[in-house]
Amino acid sequence: MSDSGIGELRPGERVLMGPGPSALDPRVLRALATPVVGHLDPDFLAIMNDTRALIRSAFATDNELTVAMSGTGSAGMETCLVNLLEPGDRALVCVNGAFGQRMVDIVERTGAEAVVVRAPWGRVIDPADVEAALKQGGIKLVALVHVETSTGVWQPVEDIAALARAHDALVVLDAVSSLGGVPVPVDQWQVDAAYSGSQKCLGAPPGLAPVTMSPRAREAIGRRRTKVQSWYLDLTMIENYWGEARAYHHTAPISMVYALREALRIAVDEGWEARWQRHLRLGRALQAGLEAMGLSLVAEENHRAPMVTAVHVPDGVNEAQVRRHLLAEYGLEIAGGLGEFKGRALRIGLMGYSCQWRNVVLCLTALSDALQAQGYKASVDDALAAAQEAARAGSAG
Amino acid sequence: MSDSGIGELRPGERVLMGPGPSALDPRVLRALATPVVGHLDPDFLAIMNDTRALIRSAFATDNELTVAMSGTGSAGMETCLVNLLEPGDRALVCVNGAFGQRMVDIVERTGAEAVVVRAPWGRVIDPADVEAALKQGGIKLVALVHVETSTGVWQPVEDIAALARAHDALVVLDAVSSLGGVPVPVDQWQVDAAYSGSQKCLGAPPGLAPVTMSPRAREAIGRRRTKVQSWYLDLTMIENYWGEARAYHHTAPISMVYALREALRIAVDEGWEARWQRHLRLGRALQAGLEAMGLSLVAEENHRAPMVTAVHVPDGVNEAQVRRHLLAEYGLEIAGGLGEFKGRALRIGLMGYSCQWRNVVLCLTALSDALQAQGYKASVDDALAAAQEAARAGSAG
Repeated sequence: MSDSGIGELRPGERVLMGPGPSALDPRVLRALATPVVGHLDPDFLAIMNDTRALIRSAFATDNELTVAMSGTGSAGMETCLVNLLEPGDRALVCVNGAFGQRMVDIVERTGAEAVVVRAPWGRVIDPADVEAALKQGGIKLVALVHVETSTGVWQPVEDIAALARAHDALVVLDAVSSLGGVPVPVDQWQVDAAYSGSQKCLGAPPGLAPVTMSPRAREAIGRRRTKVQSWYLDLTMIENYWGEARAYHHTAPISMVYALREALRIAVDEGWEARWQRHLRLGRALQAGLEAMGLSLVAEENHRAPMVTAVHVPDGVNEAQVRRHLLAEYGLEIAGGLGEFKGRALRIGLMGYSCQWRNVVLCLTALSDALQAQGYKASVDDALAAAQEAARAGSAG
Repeated sequence: MSDSGIGELRPGERVLMGPGPSALDPRVLRALATPVVGHLDPDFLAIMNDTRALIRSAFATDNELTVAMSGTGSAGMETCLVNLLEPGDRALVCVNGAFGQRMVDIVERTGAEAVVVRAPWGRVIDPADVEAALKQGGIKLVALVHVETSTGVWQPVEDIAALARAHDALVVLDAVSSLGGVPVPVDQWQVDAAYSGSQKCLGAPPGLAPVTMSPRAREAIGRRRTKVQSWYLDLTMIENYWGEARAYHHTAPISMVYALREALRIAVDEGWEARWQRHLRLGRALQAGLEAMGLSLVAEENHRAPMVTAVHVPDGVNEAQVRRHLLAEYGLEIAGGLGEFKGRALRIGLMGYSCQWRNVVLCLTALSDALQAQGYKASVDDALAAAQEAARAGSAG
């Protein structure tokens, strides 16, 4: 305890298995602790260049306009929507969870009209519904969530993107939870704007939002009749800082850029294919284990993301109590439900550096213990056997 | 060099004497490297509570609504303006430099009307001009910059704040460069909204914006007819995360909050009075040394901030070449001019952990060398003698 009355910084040691933030590789922690240089220092500009090259690699894109926004994933969402929309525009938003709903809120704040296509939470959006809405005409962009962090649903993107393209609409993709854990090839899919968060499968701390925009999206920005409503998120100015002009806009969060660069470098060294396989294999293992414990998954079959799994809370079990038990007895963090599933679901993440076999085993074991403490019986042997079998089967699922 | 083609993270070692980011105390670097916990972890919520208590201490305020926004100082500026303004409102903005001008841009993006009161760059705003504009009526808020980072002007706040209050207008204060370096007692001055940046005199890395709002400002937000245009910066939702409700809004930048808490803890341990004295004494020393070298200061006398000093570039001297020389030969960063002073001024910071006597000496010595390389003669002996005398004289000036 010091004169300030504020003690030393000493957060508990955690196994992070919520849907982000994920654990940091020790090399990323070291990068964070690197002394700072100025935001216009030639060495920092080179680090920014490295970082945008690495972000392009993550999105498998050649998009010139590729940056890390100085905010969290939600700032990335807002960046894409406020730069592309003006009052009077119409945006089709696919909503099957909390983050699709958040997009609607942001669209409405731009003064644009949100045309909403819904699916029940836990189900994928039906491309036929998107097509029907597009046929009404006048849609400037179609926004959808790749992996809904609130439910664990893994949305197929290609069909919807092709439909949007056929109706001359831009495609905006939320890749907050997906990027780095499953393929997000934005050029191949003809996605026009995509954003992510640093703290999920990319393995950096929270605080940066990778954003990429296609030439078509840039042209749309160039045709705006009004200024972007946010100065802080105005991509034209931010591109002048990340691009050749190097014009000062705001002071980049230097330490965070160090960390993101290091995390992406580690990911590229692992190899994106290997990284996706790791997430898929261990995600399927965890899901098999959970089902062997008698738990039912929120996301419909064949559309389950590997990096975030939501399970229904069994009758008679208090989910907050489960999480308290895991935190107190195991230092293990998982998350509760969001929105419709508040108090009714548990969400388990296997993201980035947190995505390790030993964490799958720890989670199944600890969760069984926590559930048994509330009278719900689940065999650890059965869970681990199922997990092992699924892991051996590899990426089937 | 790794498979990614991206080498290890190895920025040059710098003495940071630009107007932010400033150098980090080794304890702040260690805080950054602390393993992360979740953004809703009880330990993190306690860390947030500590952080807001420390921010309140920095602003000498009891304001309940006190948070660290997850963005840089400019996000703090945008936060204050977009939460308080709606289309049709009128905001009086005091402009005598680049950051006042930025406020105008942001005000206009809200759909509000910006009524601008100007002073020449390098001069303070005249309260009589503010009063004349207020008398036109209908002004919802008065926005002003405490320390203009583009010129080094230190604006008196009390008179203008009192005028605003007399005309029933809110007061918004930019304390990006001032907070932690000179007193910013927002309650005593009856300032309604103030924001800062983590990377200046507070001594944390860039990436967070401390923001505080008075009960009167909160009431104004409560009377809004429209939603805040930015979802990411919507204080009502952010208050629900920082406050009792603990409702999830976005994932806080955990590592950055660790660092800000540590930097503020260090500041409180030093003592605000002692910290202000350090900035004032060394700022005056640097300024005396610069004047002894024949350089003229941009900011008018009696209104010179201690933590950022802008000097006119002497005839025949190329400012970019001066900065390149300092960086190459000394690893020393200072900044060039902004806006009207682009290419015509040099800006030197003495902020937070960078504000040390040895940096004053290094800067004067190195700058003399860099100027002499371009044929401008300046005696280091004279500069150091003047600096020493001013430092001894303490806070006079």
